[in-house]
Amino acid sequence: MLHVITTDIFDRERLDDLCHLTTVTRRIAREPDGLRFLQQLLPVRRAMLYFTQPSTRTFLSMNNACHILGVRTSEIRNPDVSSEFKGETFEDSIRTFAAYVDMIIMRTPQPGYAARAADLMDDMDRRVPVINAGSGKDQHPTQALLDIYTLERSFRDSGGIEGKTIAMMGDLKRGRTVRSLCRLLRHYKDIHIVFIAAPGFEMEPDILAYLDDHEISYEQSDRLDDYLTSLDAIYVTRMQTEHDTSGESARVDLSGYSIGQSQIDRMKPDAVILHPLPRGAEIHPEIDDDPRAAYWRQERNGLWIRVALIASVLEASEQILSAQAKFL
Amino acid sequence: MLHVITTDIFDRERLDDLCHLTTVTRRIAREPDGLRFLQQLLPVRRAMLYFTQPSTRTFLSMNNACHILGVRTSEIRNPDVSSEFKGETFEDSIRTFAAYVDMIIMRTPQPGYAARAADLMDDMDRRVPVINAGSGKDQHPTQALLDIYTLERSFRDSGGIEGKTIAMMGDLKRGRTVRSLCRLLRHYKDIHIVFIAAPGFEMEPDILAYLDDHEISYEQSDRLDDYLTSLDAIYVTRMQTEHDTSGESARVDLSGYSIGQSQIDRMKPDAVILHPLPRGAEIHPEIDDDPRAAYWRQERNGLWIRVALIASVLEASEQILSAQAKFL
Amino acid sequence: MLHVITTDIFDRERLDDLCHLTTVTRRIAREPDGLRFLQQLLPVRRAMLYFTQPSTRTFLSMNNACHILGVRTSEIRNPDVSSEFKGETFEDSIRTFAAYVDMIIMRTPQPGYAARAADLMDDMDRRVPVINAGSGKDQHPTQALLDIYTLERSFRDSGGIEGKTIAMMGDLKRGRTVRSLCRLLRHYKDIHIVFIAAPGFEMEPDILAYLDDHEISYEQSDRLDDYLTSLDAIYVTRMQTEHDTSGESARVDLSGYSIGQSQIDRMKPDAVILHPLPRGAEIHPEIDDDPRAAYWRQERNGLWIRVALIASVLEASEQILSAQAKFL
Repeated sequence: MLHVITTDIFDRERLDDLCHLTTVTRRIAREPDGLRFLQQLLPVRRAMLYFTQPSTRTFLSMNNACHILGVRTSEIRNPDVSSEFKGETFEDSIRTFAAYVDMIIMRTPQPGYAARAADLMDDMDRRVPVINAGSGKDQHPTQALLDIYTLERSFRDSGGIEGKTIAMMGDLKRGRTVRSLCRLLRHYKDIHIVFIAAPGFEMEPDILAYLDDHEISYEQSDRLDDYLTSLDAIYVTRMQTEHDTSGESARVDLSGYSIGQSQIDRMKPDAVILHPLPRGAEIHPEIDDDPRAAYWRQERNGLWIRVALIASVLEASEQILSAQAKFL
Repeated sequence: MLHVITTDIFDRERLDDLCHLTTVTRRIAREPDGLRFLQQLLPVRRAMLYFTQPSTRTFLSMNNACHILGVRTSEIRNPDVSSEFKGETFEDSIRTFAAYVDMIIMRTPQPGYAARAADLMDDMDRRVPVINAGSGKDQHPTQALLDIYTLERSFRDSGGIEGKTIAMMGDLKRGRTVRSLCRLLRHYKDIHIVFIAAPGFEMEPDILAYLDDHEISYEQSDRLDDYLTSLDAIYVTRMQTEHDTSGESARVDLSGYSIGQSQIDRMKPDAVILHPLPRGAEIHPEIDDDPRAAYWRQERNGLWIRVALIASVLEASEQILSAQAKFL
Repeated sequence: MLHVITTDIFDRERLDDLCHLTTVTRRIAREPDGLRFLQQLLPVRRAMLYFTQPSTRTFLSMNNACHILGVRTSEIRNPDVSSEFKGETFEDSIRTFAAYVDMIIMRTPQPGYAARAADLMDDMDRRVPVINAGSGKDQHPTQALLDIYTLERSFRDSGGIEGKTIAMMGDLKRGRTVRSLCRLLRHYKDIHIVFIAAPGFEMEPDILAYLDDHEISYEQSDRLDDYLTSLDAIYVTRMQTEHDTSGESARVDLSGYSIGQSQIDRMKPDAVILHPLPRGAEIHPEIDDDPRAAYWRQERNGLWIRVALIASVLEASEQILSAQAKFL
């Protein structure tokens, strides 16, 4: 694996490997000398965090994932960075980063830029890996990976992800995390997906066609109440108000698409609630302490799966796996 | 000690302990291998510097204090950070930071936010310490601690802080550093405080009542000249013009509330002049080289007391104290 | 060497020493344990990158040069930083930085500021070195040094820089890199310089007088075609449009002052093309893969000469030179 641009490079085996590496890594990190071991893995590596689309959460998890492995970081977090480059092309900018660092982690408002950066690298002598931390509206692979990892961990004592009924609720039309999650779920058998959205915010036809093509069972509804008792997991997302053209988000009555105490009371005792965060009113803080509320664990999983991913990309995964006997 | 939110947690014993730890730390840092020892103390710890109120000086001292101990840092220094969080609550943002780092150092324009962050942590499984680097107009505990440390060091050959006459001059009404210093001085016996301010800029009644309650002797004046020969220390502050409502700072004749060569010439040979910096016209650069001008030493003390404080919060102080025999 | 403010401190011996140190450093960095050795050189040193004039490229190369040597960095990259300092003088700001770090790397839009900072340091007890990373329109010494290093490496198998014919083309009137390069070329014998510029963009008289004074041969032309076959090197620069007063750059027909496939085809097989980057239309990407296109190597040379320079300033160069036997 050189670059991580889309989730397409992950088949089931790679997903399982990455989840395993993540779990091993965090177990090592819990041992007294484990964090020191991890930090000695890549102390001479340097990463560039090129975030022309601001995202404090993704930035922080990537930056700290680097720091856990000893990787030094340089950052650009300025949406106006183009002006700094005095008209330089995107390709020349990326090539410049590659001259100074060993890895580029990038997030842009434009779609396809991470892929362009990766393609450029593949033509060069000094190739450095590119990790996509969000590129336009469609791709955000590390989010999808941490979602899979969270489901996998949540169901580790109940047979794994296969065979589960998983709802996705909220702004399905415009949220990219649910789209990526649908694609990755094709690697797990006998999944049933329930899309729950207010009228006008339903999942787009391209994803439904994708599910049909891969023979993944799904149904659509605008009524959460009908499903609460039967779900194994629900993935809740916020309204993407920043993409509103005429305030359409504000016209939705969110009460039918939210989870609070009265909803969670009806859910299975081992169901899990995920959310990519940040959240709006769709998840009430009153359920935060319920063990089924998995979103804060999910956020922390995001840190560790990024540690594992960076370790893979910079070829330190074997060292981690070999070391586990010493620590565990 | 988990959090450092106000100076209230510091009684005399804790102040003495912290000052001692600071002095030991900087002595170790002077030895050839001392800085390497310090940097090996906390190499796997990660801190978040969350500065929604910009302050280059406090930021730099905190960041470098972390670096001296090997702590890796991530930073937010953007006053508009709320927009990045897409409407997320303050509590959710803090909980997110806590998912990624081991310590939160924060500075906000709003009062009380550091306390809210600390309260939130105390309800969580994964508690990370919070250090207040300035929270609204009232609290800036690390500044007060470095002021005490500077006084303590200045008087270490003349019996310590107790029994000294200490003036505070400038914008006493709106400066938070003098307020915090007054509170901490209650831990030292037989202090006499002289408040020197232009009319309209006098110390607020709540602090005067506080001094009365704790039987601390003080007087108020608008004439610096009357006191110059009798002071052991003077703590000078700038006009807080950013809090002006109608340009009131500009109407003050600062010449009567400034220190230059003619003022310092009348002061005791072992008196000391402090200032939290940045300074305006109230301290003339012509006295910078006078040994009584303590403000540049005070700034550097600020670096080292923050090193000691972070070491305490992250539980490395015992290691520092045990190591001193090896280095000194 | 304490500070690096202008290229005036570099005579031929120092240039040769720095180039040699750079080459040794990058050779060490290629060995398995070499990067670890370099990173252990200065782990307890801290640098301040004070960039009130944004420059992502120079910032990144300086930051990563620090990281290669283990130096920790703090940064200010805000052009409005003065407001953060609440009216503080430049001198007080610099003195504050010096309280917290061991080296100041600075870039300002105003000329002379790096020199002022260095002068201030020389009056202080706690002197920290200052490296000029661009100060106004005139001085950018590390760029000039990396240009010399690139020429030196390019000609290492053909007798070095001496005796070569070197063209400089583009916005000679307003580009500072060509001015600095002219000054440094005085240390090499029998150089012949060809200035190629559109009318109105010719090299300024002060540099021509400087070359006359030092008996350096040069000629001026507005026709690139006449020289292509005879040049050993051409240093191309972009139009400095940000300094336009009435859109004068846009009125130049750049086709006569650009290098593409048809130009490079006429050049000597061992000629080299340099450019300080970022580039505009004056160098066509179609020649990027030609071995004579040296500008991407030049950029990477910029990283390594900064590593060598920082190692010199922080007194680690002897350790590097002594270690080469172990690694090479």
